[in-house]
Amino acid sequence: MPQKTLQEIADHVGGVVIGDPSVIIESASTLDCAGAGQITFLSNPKYAPRVKETRAAAVLVKEEVETSAAQIVTEDPYYAFMQAVVLLHGHREHPRTGINKRADISELAKIGQNCNIHPFAVVSENAVIGDNCQLYSGVFIGDNVTLGDDCILYPNAVIYDGCRVGDRVIVQSNASVGQDGFGFATHKGEHHKIPQIGIVILEDDVEIGSNSVIERGTLDNTVIGKGSKVGDAVAIGHGTKIGPHCLLVPQAGISGSTELGHHCVIGGQVGVVGHIKVGNRVTVGARAAVINNVPDGATILGSPAIEANKAKRAYVLIETLPDIRKKLKRLDKEINKLKDK
Amino acid sequence: MPQKTLQEIADHVGGVVIGDPSVIIESASTLDCAGAGQITFLSNPKYAPRVKETRAAAVLVKEEVETSAAQIVTEDPYYAFMQAVVLLHGHREHPRTGINKRADISELAKIGQNCNIHPFAVVSENAVIGDNCQLYSGVFIGDNVTLGDDCILYPNAVIYDGCRVGDRVIVQSNASVGQDGFGFATHKGEHHKIPQIGIVILEDDVEIGSNSVIERGTLDNTVIGKGSKVGDAVAIGHGTKIGPHCLLVPQAGISGSTELGHHCVIGGQVGVVGHIKVGNRVTVGARAAVINNVPDGATILGSPAIEANKAKRAYVLIETLPDIRKKLKRLDKEINKLKDK
Amino acid sequence: MPQKTLQEIADHVGGVVIGDPSVIIESASTLDCAGAGQITFLSNPKYAPRVKETRAAAVLVKEEVETSAAQIVTEDPYYAFMQAVVLLHGHREHPRTGINKRADISELAKIGQNCNIHPFAVVSENAVIGDNCQLYSGVFIGDNVTLGDDCILYPNAVIYDGCRVGDRVIVQSNASVGQDGFGFATHKGEHHKIPQIGIVILEDDVEIGSNSVIERGTLDNTVIGKGSKVGDAVAIGHGTKIGPHCLLVPQAGISGSTELGHHCVIGGQVGVVGHIKVGNRVTVGARAAVINNVPDGATILGSPAIEANKAKRAYVLIETLPDIRKKLKRLDKEINKLKDK
Repeated sequence: MPQKTLQEIADHVGGVVIGDPSVIIESASTLDCAGAGQITFLSNPKYAPRVKETRAAAVLVKEEVETSAAQIVTEDPYYAFMQAVVLLHGHREHPRTGINKRADISELAKIGQNCNIHPFAVVSENAVIGDNCQLYSGVFIGDNVTLGDDCILYPNAVIYDGCRVGDRVIVQSNASVGQDGFGFATHKGEHHKIPQIGIVILEDDVEIGSNSVIERGTLDNTVIGKGSKVGDAVAIGHGTKIGPHCLLVPQAGISGSTELGHHCVIGGQVGVVGHIKVGNRVTVGARAAVINNVPDGATILGSPAIEANKAKRAYVLIETLPDIRKKLKRLDKEINKLKDK
Repeated sequence: MPQKTLQEIADHVGGVVIGDPSVIIESASTLDCAGAGQITFLSNPKYAPRVKETRAAAVLVKEEVETSAAQIVTEDPYYAFMQAVVLLHGHREHPRTGINKRADISELAKIGQNCNIHPFAVVSENAVIGDNCQLYSGVFIGDNVTLGDDCILYPNAVIYDGCRVGDRVIVQSNASVGQDGFGFATHKGEHHKIPQIGIVILEDDVEIGSNSVIERGTLDNTVIGKGSKVGDAVAIGHGTKIGPHCLLVPQAGISGSTELGHHCVIGGQVGVVGHIKVGNRVTVGARAAVINNVPDGATILGSPAIEANKAKRAYVLIETLPDIRKKLKRLDKEINKLKDK
Repeated sequence: MPQKTLQEIADHVGGVVIGDPSVIIESASTLDCAGAGQITFLSNPKYAPRVKETRAAAVLVKEEVETSAAQIVTEDPYYAFMQAVVLLHGHREHPRTGINKRADISELAKIGQNCNIHPFAVVSENAVIGDNCQLYSGVFIGDNVTLGDDCILYPNAVIYDGCRVGDRVIVQSNASVGQDGFGFATHKGEHHKIPQIGIVILEDDVEIGSNSVIERGTLDNTVIGKGSKVGDAVAIGHGTKIGPHCLLVPQAGISGSTELGHHCVIGGQVGVVGHIKVGNRVTVGARAAVINNVPDGATILGSPAIEANKAKRAYVLIETLPDIRKKLKRLDKEINKLKDK
């Protein structure tokens, strides 16, 4: 069990202690669950009343609040909380298996320093793996794939031939990167496979969630931009370009040849059609269906997606349609009566 | 080929034979396809007329019906049919490979009696596997995972470190359990990974479908309650609690920190937002989008989801919107004419 | 780098050169990206203006267009382009590993001529593999599975026991074929697994995308018809029959016991309920929810799905619902005023 004083945490996150700086903190928890020896945070002001009742030893806050817990006041409490969690709990430690004899490594592959390659992982011909990479069991690295340094590929993640992966990229279990794009030429009623000669590029600091599917490009490449995070079970079409620092929530799907700008947030189960442009800093609410280009900075919602505030007012009214019909009939009758007079 | 008399089946399911109890039954089939030597069932009264025409040797029914087939009258024909299918066909028999030499089992793992662990399966440090478990090829069991007795993990199923799995749990192929939750602290435009220190708990008798993804919790645990069945390609967010005896149909998604009660039925492609409470015995129709708390016993539908009967009346009227607009214009004109008079 | 003259390509695709037939073509690209030494195509007349500006060496067209690039005039430019891509780039070449010693092949399995079976692939008892098949690492072939000739199974694809796979079938990485259907008999609040005794049949020339899930049938079989192509992360329910030459775009879901005719196109994220019939040559727009039988030749859209043109006019009007309500109120008031007079 790690042990830090509140002051040590405050120093680490760059915050100011209110209360006893010598309180011992052993772990992190949520506002509702935190108890003795635990630190929590308040970032959404909506939950401020709960801070009063928390049994946490300490709370990270943006501004001093009324509570019996000790506090650390800091500019960005959620970011500070992340730092505290890393300090107290650390990221996952990876088994130090070295290059296991039961892995299948091509003689023509190059493996960097200090990698752990688990049993039953495969590294194919001419693949290049950087330093400090973790390749868990069942991982498949195709021919000519390049991986940067400090990458983590969890069990059964698959990277098809030729794809390029940057530094510090994480691919969770059972994800597929670089499989053939869904591209067929239909001729006389039969669908003929078009060789998909593009690749997938995962830039630095990208994370791909479990069971997500990132198609390789037909001619052009599919790109996931630097620092973008893709949740579980997300589907990205061939030739699609996701800009840097985007968040794609689980089960979202982006069709082929679409371009997203930087810092977009794509909600869960969202669908975006192919061949459109979504601007920078666009937020798409969960389950929206995006069928047209979207300008920079827009927040959209609904299926089809429209400006979010408009959508919030409009979509809830679908349930009033039976009333609207009834009212229309009544008005029609009343007008006819008036006309008859 | 198994052979049972109708009487043997009736005794097994606790029913009463109408017709010849010595009829030989060899297999089970559907009402439409069943023929000689086959047993079928009627549970939905809608299909009663088809029983007349069935060529099945016997039918499981709740009440005697008009048919030339023999009948077994029983309280719950569908449940009785399940019992008959098990009697005639059995569940899948698993290869008796023992602990295969080509599996990779940590010396620090504990394996129960009578397990079959296939080639290329991995059991990591300090994992504990109960008795009579089946671990197919490509299965990954992370550090400190515990599995109860009689579990079946199909090829390439992945259980991340620390997760706890009860007795008689089934995880189908390529499913991911316990991968990192989608949790990032965004600071100055960059997304920083928050260590996900919670785990996933799969309680007794849970089944997880192929390619489903169950995120581990950030701080709290993700829980799938006793007896709940999760279909294929379902996504469960971090810290979400699914109560006991729920059914989640394929491609549904439940966002993080949401709680479902017991005996909920979540339709295909449903989306449920995070941080809400869904009561007990709630039924959510296919493709619904649930964005608010749901009371016990509710049946809801639509996107956004509303009470199901209301939804059925309202959503079909979307197609009348062009007519509504036209009618409104006409009424407006007529009123103006009346005003002019 | 392959090199072909324009005339060689024209001969190969059956087209007529306009311009210099000796131009050297080295690769294929898109209209916007193509440059010197590259061939592209125009199939959608919408993009005709871009052909004028293309820097491609040559363009495949249906009718002569105004451009400085050389042209090949041909009946079906997209199909011809596919042929040109195959000629210039070829399909993926598979490593010639033979039957690797680190694969796990049952002594009771039959393997055809000329197969490549990679390390850590599994072929179980009584499975029959045709000639020229590629089984990548982590592939699992269950007991009694039959595979035709020239099949390609990418890493970690899983085929459960008893399934039947035709010739030239491609299954992309991490796909699951033949896992148990989502079938339970609920009795006294508990869900009891019904043995799923049907199988999955993938007919000739089928392709299954990465991480797709095709359930085996409960009693009847699940069938994907000849030449049908299933995208990534698609879910097919138990006992469902997909006719020949269909296209199912990523993340679509077809529930159990539904039948699709031939030449259907099912858009991305579409949901189709169970136990219905979808006719031949039906097109379902992205994200549609199909809840009723669909006649031959229909094009439908929306959730719930209706005739596509109707849907296009109706669904965009959801955003006008607040206006409709306002207008209704105003008309109501005006009528009341008129009545008062």
